[in-house]
Amino acid sequence: MKTVEVKASRSYRVEIGGGLLDSLGEKAAALLCGRTAVIVSDDIVAPLYAARAKASLEAAGFAVCSFVFPHGEASKCGSTYLELVNFLAQERLGRDDLLVALGGGVVGDLTGFAAATYQRGVGYIQVPTTLLAMVDSSVGGKTAIDLPAGKNLCGAFYQPLLVLCDTETRKTLPEDIFVDGCAEVIKYGVLGDESLFCTLESGPAAQDWEEIIAQCVAMKRDLVQADEFDTGSRQFLNLGHTLGHAVEAGSNFSLSHGKSVAIGMAMIARAAEKFGFCAAETQQKIENILAAYGLPQHTELPADMLCEAALGDKKRRGNRLTLVLPETIGHCRLHKIDIRELPDWIGAAL
Amino acid sequence: MKTVEVKASRSYRVEIGGGLLDSLGEKAAALLCGRTAVIVSDDIVAPLYAARAKASLEAAGFAVCSFVFPHGEASKCGSTYLELVNFLAQERLGRDDLLVALGGGVVGDLTGFAAATYQRGVGYIQVPTTLLAMVDSSVGGKTAIDLPAGKNLCGAFYQPLLVLCDTETRKTLPEDIFVDGCAEVIKYGVLGDESLFCTLESGPAAQDWEEIIAQCVAMKRDLVQADEFDTGSRQFLNLGHTLGHAVEAGSNFSLSHGKSVAIGMAMIARAAEKFGFCAAETQQKIENILAAYGLPQHTELPADMLCEAALGDKKRRGNRLTLVLPETIGHCRLHKIDIRELPDWIGAAL
Repeated sequence: MKTVEVKASRSYRVEIGGGLLDSLGEKAAALLCGRTAVIVSDDIVAPLYAARAKASLEAAGFAVCSFVFPHGEASKCGSTYLELVNFLAQERLGRDDLLVALGGGVVGDLTGFAAATYQRGVGYIQVPTTLLAMVDSSVGGKTAIDLPAGKNLCGAFYQPLLVLCDTETRKTLPEDIFVDGCAEVIKYGVLGDESLFCTLESGPAAQDWEEIIAQCVAMKRDLVQADEFDTGSRQFLNLGHTLGHAVEAGSNFSLSHGKSVAIGMAMIARAAEKFGFCAAETQQKIENILAAYGLPQHTELPADMLCEAALGDKKRRGNRLTLVLPETIGHCRLHKIDIRELPDWIGAAL
Repeated sequence: MKTVEVKASRSYRVEIGGGLLDSLGEKAAALLCGRTAVIVSDDIVAPLYAARAKASLEAAGFAVCSFVFPHGEASKCGSTYLELVNFLAQERLGRDDLLVALGGGVVGDLTGFAAATYQRGVGYIQVPTTLLAMVDSSVGGKTAIDLPAGKNLCGAFYQPLLVLCDTETRKTLPEDIFVDGCAEVIKYGVLGDESLFCTLESGPAAQDWEEIIAQCVAMKRDLVQADEFDTGSRQFLNLGHTLGHAVEAGSNFSLSHGKSVAIGMAMIARAAEKFGFCAAETQQKIENILAAYGLPQHTELPADMLCEAALGDKKRRGNRLTLVLPETIGHCRLHKIDIRELPDWIGAAL
């Protein structure tokens, strides 16, 4: 087992290892005094793992109930959020009780936002079951729901009490969903760790995933600790995300987050190369590694639609937008543009 | 004009005086760099004051749009909240832009919660137009919406950039709504200021309201600064609120917040007297002053319904509930009970 300590406005541990799910109850009991827990999950993950989570919590003395919703990004919306907080109120969950987010990024973001706002804040534990959620959304305290106008437009900064990454859950992950997470892992290599990138170049089968997840979480931890509320260096984590979110929104969320980010990363690398911010070799390495993991690098969506979607992104500040540009593998820069320059960037990226 | 400085996680000023509404734009422009403002108001307050607020903001260089919803507690719900954040997204409000809450407590709580969560936080200014909102909800950063199971069950701690109390708005306040605010003002006297209580005993017509509002805001400021996240001394502000919220919920919100708090205060005073926490004289003084302001002191609701509603209150911690008991005028105590004792307290209070 590996452990990463996160020191944010509330400090917590990220634990990474096989079989950790069965220690959930014991660890939860040590963290809070309430003895009611609500497991929040989706209809794919709940049948696989909810019974084990429940058994572990009950063995530690918790009364447990579950809220299960249909899987997929479409559920990360206002109406599921209201259903969830109403469920918590009906169950009379108190401020000292617990939410457990058992699932991928959709489950984690939605549960985190409910935990942040129900009674103005109750404790929650992230139990991410996808690679993507383990290396990205479960760490750092960004919680959110989507609005029809765009992703993650409503949310809160709210840190979990604990993150438990049970690496064995990877065994039940469909290949497609696993590959999705690889896009975010590759992102960490590009934005800050050339040796991680080189390790990843040997392909997914050759990897020690416990070690890689711990490396990604530690990188994210460093960026989050330096900038919890996302006004500076944390923006590096947005590599591939400004255009990636636009691609995801433009596809009406039929394209997954990981694949959208892969396309967004490939696009921004092409534009960075065209505008002289990185060498052709760097851009090519990024496209090659995405291809090696079976990730897409191109979109068929029209430029004007991508531009429109990118302008709705909450990373926009007035008429300015900050792009994250790869310079070399392992080193990126933040680059502010006027939103009137965006069509040129998207033109160069396509 | 009087000014109270609040030093919370974000510091801000509460300004109290006649005609302050016309200085809104100038003061907003000094506080943030965005230049889009959304005025949020209800269909009673908007026709009275939205045009002046808009003119002031436009004169200071803001592009202004408005979101107006039906007045009343029923609007402080999940669906209005989602309509509002969707409106902000459609208007492409950015993180540096501004929300203005123009109205009473419902407008302030709802707008504050939208500001806390839209894009994980945008700035907002409270422009309370009722006495209740001036002395209570606009200061301290508690934002919320109601759920069907109870009041304020979903929300955030989120401080405004500025609170502007234009005391002239009192002139358009119906007597009934004004009296509602008097219940909270009387609460401040009971919980911490005997001389304020004595001043108030001469009746509403005799008062210098600018001075009284400033005194109440300063008392709330002191309690909020000592305990921003409501885990200790801030609970004194709940005097009359545990039973008051139960009365309000039991009436299906047909009884106003102020009148519910008045009943809650009278009830807890009667119970405190019966259980020997205060003298009969103290309890009588509280009932007398409520009567002098035309505020109710009794409810017809059955004890079991009140008990059920009080147990859903978010102030409950596990099986413990903290009651705020008057001991003398100007001095209260926090008293923890087991929830199994609640029926006795309600029986004594009725």
